[in-house]
Amino acid sequence: MSLPPVLPAKQLVVQKFGGSSVADAAGVKRVAKRVVDYHEAGHEVVVVVSAMGDTTDELLDLAAEITDSAPAREMDMLLSAGERMSMALLAMAINKLGHKAQSFTGSQAGMITDGTHGKARIIDVDPHRIRTSLDKGNIAIVAGFQGMSRESQDITTLGRGGSDTTAVALAAALEADVCEIYTDVDGVYTADPRVVPSARKIETISSEEMLELAASGAKILHLRCVEYARRFGVPLHVRSSFSHNEGTWVLPSPEDKFTISEGVALEQPIISGVAHDRSEAKVTVVGVPDIPGKAAAIFQVIAKANSNIDMIVQNVSTFGRGKTDISFTLPIVEGANALNALKASQDEIGFEDIEYNAEIGKLSLIGAGMRSHPGVSATFFKALSDAGINIDMISTSEIRISVVTRADLLDAAVRAIHTAFDLDVDTQATVYGGTGR
Amino acid sequence: MSLPPVLPAKQLVVQKFGGSSVADAAGVKRVAKRVVDYHEAGHEVVVVVSAMGDTTDELLDLAAEITDSAPAREMDMLLSAGERMSMALLAMAINKLGHKAQSFTGSQAGMITDGTHGKARIIDVDPHRIRTSLDKGNIAIVAGFQGMSRESQDITTLGRGGSDTTAVALAAALEADVCEIYTDVDGVYTADPRVVPSARKIETISSEEMLELAASGAKILHLRCVEYARRFGVPLHVRSSFSHNEGTWVLPSPEDKFTISEGVALEQPIISGVAHDRSEAKVTVVGVPDIPGKAAAIFQVIAKANSNIDMIVQNVSTFGRGKTDISFTLPIVEGANALNALKASQDEIGFEDIEYNAEIGKLSLIGAGMRSHPGVSATFFKALSDAGINIDMISTSEIRISVVTRADLLDAAVRAIHTAFDLDVDTQATVYGGTGR
Repeated sequence: MSLPPVLPAKQLVVQKFGGSSVADAAGVKRVAKRVVDYHEAGHEVVVVVSAMGDTTDELLDLAAEITDSAPAREMDMLLSAGERMSMALLAMAINKLGHKAQSFTGSQAGMITDGTHGKARIIDVDPHRIRTSLDKGNIAIVAGFQGMSRESQDITTLGRGGSDTTAVALAAALEADVCEIYTDVDGVYTADPRVVPSARKIETISSEEMLELAASGAKILHLRCVEYARRFGVPLHVRSSFSHNEGTWVLPSPEDKFTISEGVALEQPIISGVAHDRSEAKVTVVGVPDIPGKAAAIFQVIAKANSNIDMIVQNVSTFGRGKTDISFTLPIVEGANALNALKASQDEIGFEDIEYNAEIGKLSLIGAGMRSHPGVSATFFKALSDAGINIDMISTSEIRISVVTRADLLDAAVRAIHTAFDLDVDTQATVYGGTGR
Repeated sequence: MSLPPVLPAKQLVVQKFGGSSVADAAGVKRVAKRVVDYHEAGHEVVVVVSAMGDTTDELLDLAAEITDSAPAREMDMLLSAGERMSMALLAMAINKLGHKAQSFTGSQAGMITDGTHGKARIIDVDPHRIRTSLDKGNIAIVAGFQGMSRESQDITTLGRGGSDTTAVALAAALEADVCEIYTDVDGVYTADPRVVPSARKIETISSEEMLELAASGAKILHLRCVEYARRFGVPLHVRSSFSHNEGTWVLPSPEDKFTISEGVALEQPIISGVAHDRSEAKVTVVGVPDIPGKAAAIFQVIAKANSNIDMIVQNVSTFGRGKTDISFTLPIVEGANALNALKASQDEIGFEDIEYNAEIGKLSLIGAGMRSHPGVSATFFKALSDAGINIDMISTSEIRISVVTRADLLDAAVRAIHTAFDLDVDTQATVYGGTGR
């Protein structure tokens, strides 16, 4: 089997495999084979694994049979058993193929976190045991998703996106040449292929753009992992565990000295892709007194309820009655909490009513090139208008335009924008197939 | 619910529950209730748990799907996940009952071992995190069966009897007042009740006698745990997790200052009980040259094959041909290995043949009182003779007589000896019921 032409010289590679890749013994063996291929090609390999397939759900079910209010410390202890199994089995499978492997828990791998059980933050990485294991010719397997609290020395878990973040943090600490994130799709697409069948795979994207894509609802990489990779300059390669095709390279910055391979140039297309998100709801606070401090008071109430606000729109006060409406979006799961907090402060703030709408969708267009291409927003809004789609809210950043629409119009909106910016695979065939990969 | 009258004042109790006690959520909750009862009575409680029910077998099955030669280090990493689950769930269940609990892995609990994966030996116990947790009012839950290698800092498992040994080692290090071993029977019996229905529960037994019982095939406590308890003077209480009845107290020595309760006197019966064992086979090396050094050569061969010899008999050289036969017993599982080693050295040692017989049984009578009662062996051998049972091999210690018989006669032999020494529950009714418990 020939390796992809990605790593020509001896390199240090961190490879992350998710739970679906190691769901059963056959999956573990398939991952082992892939890891060993790299090792045989002369590379140093660190593998980060998640818990096997349904293990985490089974453990959560067991806990739910015991209690509806498990202490977070004990939940972390329970859940961290999952990676322990998958990583030991993977080490065995690699050994069976004639290569040496050692598995390490999060704490053994030096993943030092704060003490926030269930969503701990990495505060230090001391990978000296991993480095020593590699120096002895081992493939090192590390449990994703878990670490150890510096203060209490208790086991912690990193929460959502935790295993990807483990991989990136280790890659940064070990100064790895690349962090490969294996998944069940073959890369990052210009839009969700389930919504836009003509979406094409992105070959390279800056981590800045990937950050906006992830923040705008693209599920393939967790925001946190991309942030970490960007901050520490770790090149990510998102690819499929079921093929040897190149995936998508997420590159920290154009100045990055890392050269992927001769075939891939760091050309910057104007637009990277279209993301969408159905997980948010819109709250409108009606009849807010149009005097200074009222908007601040509203957002203080929301912040105290621990809700994360995304987009905000304050309507112009047109009624000549000294009142205005303020709308914002927030995750649906935090909706009830935020509404209760607002209602409790209605008299104090003096607004008239609250409206809540979960039937909305958010569409975002991302591209670093829009900085220098002023025509982007014109094309964007004309495409939506031509498709007969009403816009409810708008927010922009330097490299992103986001709009909120009715939920039932979201898919049509995504397709309209994807086509308007020539992202469809048909119109891009020469670019897509250009490098012959 | 009233507690048994065992622990009148505030004491430090180590309680060990096996895998069958925490086989499912209901079991975990039942154990939690029992633990909390002790805590509510004002005692400090440390709980040692094994992996849940079939967890270990399931993990072994998974490993077998991957490889037939798993590295021992990785097997330990895999298996140690089992206790992690049971202990976290138990901590949650205790929390649900309104008490604080914290779970600790073997390494967190300070179980320092050598580096022999799969059957590590405890070389140090540093329970300062457990002590701190108790001082904060917690119930401390500790993973049985596992520790950390001092040299490599790798996870180790203690092998057979490991969880009991964890409990005793922690009890010793914490200077606990008692180590309770919970099991599915209500104590140690004078013989296996499945063989001798009239067997009775032993109220107290010295750890010296318990050691001989365990070494002679009694399954209830592992030799290793009893050895540890004896060496460090830890009083054991073997009892049922399904009742609050007193079980069997295993007491380190008559000088031990520990007073169980007023009702139990440290009277020493002549005989403690009868143990039997079907796990051994008999090997006879036929026609060994009757010259010095030949027996030593044979046992060196066996030792090199890592087999543990139990009983040895050298027959008298009666044939006037300068040859003798040497018989010994060893575990059946080590039989093939030992036979191969012997055959390979046949020419060098110069014996004529090897006979192998797995259809044997070993019966042992144990009692510290036999030291001062010379009539014991006479009664013993007469009883076997009256029952028409031929004796194949004999070995004795100060407080034990063991014989090997045909396997199909073993049960009858056990019953004959049990009756001959007045151990049957009918003849002992006054003693058994004497204290009213």
